[in-house]
Amino acid sequence: MALSTKPYKGTRDFYPEDMYVQKWMFENIAKTVEGFGYQPYDGPMLEPFELYAAKSGQEIVEKQLYWFTDRGERKVAIRPEMTPTMARMVAGKVMELPKPVRWYSIPNLWRYERPQRGRLREHWQLNVDVLGGDNLFADAEILKLAHAVIAGFGGEDKIRIAINNRKLINHVFKNLLKLDADAALKASKAVDARDKIGEEAYLKLLAEAGLNSDQTSTMENFFKSDLETVCSDFDCEGARELNELFSVLKDDAISSVLKLEPQIMRGLDYYTGTVFEVYDVSPENNRAMFGGGRYDNLIGLFGNQQLSGVGFGMGDVTLRNFLESHNLLPELKSHLDVFFVTANRDAVIQSEKLASDLRKLGIKCASSLSTAKFNQQLKQANKLNAKIAVIIGESELENQQLTLKDLVKGEQTSIATNQLTSHLKSMLPGSFN
Amino acid sequence: MALSTKPYKGTRDFYPEDMYVQKWMFENIAKTVEGFGYQPYDGPMLEPFELYAAKSGQEIVEKQLYWFTDRGERKVAIRPEMTPTMARMVAGKVMELPKPVRWYSIPNLWRYERPQRGRLREHWQLNVDVLGGDNLFADAEILKLAHAVIAGFGGEDKIRIAINNRKLINHVFKNLLKLDADAALKASKAVDARDKIGEEAYLKLLAEAGLNSDQTSTMENFFKSDLETVCSDFDCEGARELNELFSVLKDDAISSVLKLEPQIMRGLDYYTGTVFEVYDVSPENNRAMFGGGRYDNLIGLFGNQQLSGVGFGMGDVTLRNFLESHNLLPELKSHLDVFFVTANRDAVIQSEKLASDLRKLGIKCASSLSTAKFNQQLKQANKLNAKIAVIIGESELENQQLTLKDLVKGEQTSIATNQLTSHLKSMLPGSFN
Repeated sequence: MALSTKPYKGTRDFYPEDMYVQKWMFENIAKTVEGFGYQPYDGPMLEPFELYAAKSGQEIVEKQLYWFTDRGERKVAIRPEMTPTMARMVAGKVMELPKPVRWYSIPNLWRYERPQRGRLREHWQLNVDVLGGDNLFADAEILKLAHAVIAGFGGEDKIRIAINNRKLINHVFKNLLKLDADAALKASKAVDARDKIGEEAYLKLLAEAGLNSDQTSTMENFFKSDLETVCSDFDCEGARELNELFSVLKDDAISSVLKLEPQIMRGLDYYTGTVFEVYDVSPENNRAMFGGGRYDNLIGLFGNQQLSGVGFGMGDVTLRNFLESHNLLPELKSHLDVFFVTANRDAVIQSEKLASDLRKLGIKCASSLSTAKFNQQLKQANKLNAKIAVIIGESELENQQLTLKDLVKGEQTSIATNQLTSHLKSMLPGSFN
Repeated sequence: MALSTKPYKGTRDFYPEDMYVQKWMFENIAKTVEGFGYQPYDGPMLEPFELYAAKSGQEIVEKQLYWFTDRGERKVAIRPEMTPTMARMVAGKVMELPKPVRWYSIPNLWRYERPQRGRLREHWQLNVDVLGGDNLFADAEILKLAHAVIAGFGGEDKIRIAINNRKLINHVFKNLLKLDADAALKASKAVDARDKIGEEAYLKLLAEAGLNSDQTSTMENFFKSDLETVCSDFDCEGARELNELFSVLKDDAISSVLKLEPQIMRGLDYYTGTVFEVYDVSPENNRAMFGGGRYDNLIGLFGNQQLSGVGFGMGDVTLRNFLESHNLLPELKSHLDVFFVTANRDAVIQSEKLASDLRKLGIKCASSLSTAKFNQQLKQANKLNAKIAVIIGESELENQQLTLKDLVKGEQTSIATNQLTSHLKSMLPGSFN
């Protein structure tokens, strides 16, 4: 039986036209984050299972993690997120690394999910993190960077950045709602899932967490608080941090889209301070696109070192959907400068020699590797978006000539073979080194 | 207990200094192959197990493949090589794709191996393939491209390219040695492993395959044949193809390093014609670095389509070892144009404003995010290879001045804050957009 040509469920094949988009997006991202002094890193696709069991959150490990036992009886997992790998690597060289550590990576990650819009089993995710430095300045930088990455695509007026602080949430859950640790965790998970599961299921989860209707409405009122109310009503570190963060950022470009939204939780268990989510403001896509936050205890999992950090992750599927829906994706095509159309064996051999010379000058060229009819070869040249076809027929070989066809304008000229470079220089001035 | 900071056995962490090397190598490769008109593609990390069971060869599937059963009872494998994914993708769009299909990818691949020099469990591998076009011209192009990729690093006089043809081997095994299919397969595996396992084990494998000493010495003589002998002694398609291939390539730069070596087999089962291996000529590293060949039946696994191809794969570990041992790897470091050294909160806020403006002009800059002692902040600037430190102290803030320190020359100057851009333009002319 024939094998299927379909990729594994929930994954994508990247044909060249998709690769051009992916590469363009990643290069654009890299340009922005490197402008902020972030350095690239990467780690292995497989990690010890324990790395995720420690901090990634129950849902990921129990329901979404790809893991198996290798031939040496090691329990290994395919990375579902990059932060644990980053923390492991930073912990491994924590003394030598210059601080603040500013790192980025665009790894592919795997989660066993039911495939749906914006959610696939394999996706790529920009991860940026800064470790060390004053916490508040670092938080401010990460928020600015999230804004700058979107601005790099021209999307800065299409987003809203909602921030909150885990310490504020903890304070409210403990001191205002009087929830114990277990109830607080369950309530935070319910709030985090609210948009996804709908109001009815949300209220059911709150009831299961043990919240009565008074507590539920007190929490609902808290969610409606603005910065001023939060600062006056809740005397806690979380409120003070939020206030200072807004103050530091008040003259920055981000300030027009930055908003305190006290219901923002972030699903991952390791966040300890500032948390934020970036939303597409268009009404047909009002889910959070990406987000991040501060984690103060991650490096400590690997030993006695202490180094706190803050970062975010942004997925490629979400980003591409965002760019497409706002018409921010340019048309990207392959481009080939010259395609050689050849009549026979000697013509192919000559085309290869000419191609070798042109490539040294920076010209992208390919020959058809065939002696099929010229029309058929020219069709291939057009499919490959070649700019110029160089035709080597029998009479051209005999007379040491070439026929040049401008595939955009359709014009055709005959030239001496040894004039090829000078003619191309006038036809393709931008393509030469 | 603290988690380990070590990566999973046989894998590598890429800290920024390693990423700079990796990116430099891959960009260099991409430039060469795109100059030949090759287009990028990629596929998922996980593929159906059956994709490899079909053609990858028994050793890979039984001993080296990472595979497991997913939560939906699908048998999936982590890709150990890229060719099956490429064949699946080409087969999926075989009618629409412009021919010849020229594709490349640099995926990470996994094999369960005992880690050793040049062999790791996770490595990256350049894969290039051309499908369609006249077989012989395509074979010639792939050989030239293998040569050009190494020449792109300046290593073209450090290699030898050994070629052979599976049809010639089949002819010799069948008609000269009178081996049946099973014995021929076993003998080819023994020859393929010869360098690795040593002479004694090799002869033992040949005996197990059923070869007597006459056959063994006949084969040994065949291995010593040159092109002329092969063409005169063996009237078969394989010999004719080799002869024509050498003829087509005789005036190309590759001809000085290209050699027929009839003992070249290539391990993978799907090769059907030209096969080749690229060797480092330095005596301390005489193993094959990489290789490839022609496969005529791969696309047919996915249906009735026929499209033959030829390609090669080159691993990043082998390449890096080669470049390092021949001193072809430049010193690659992070580079930061400007690092802001800040005395207090207001200085940090000012540094962030100045940084925002500079980034728009293409300057890579970062602030220390700290108000630690200047000496300590300057040390970080040096560790990050920053070119210039912009110091914002209390007196600078008061006088609307900045202190610029050239970290290469050590010179220091005071300037007005609003003169920063013009001063940097004269100090870092190449860094601006």
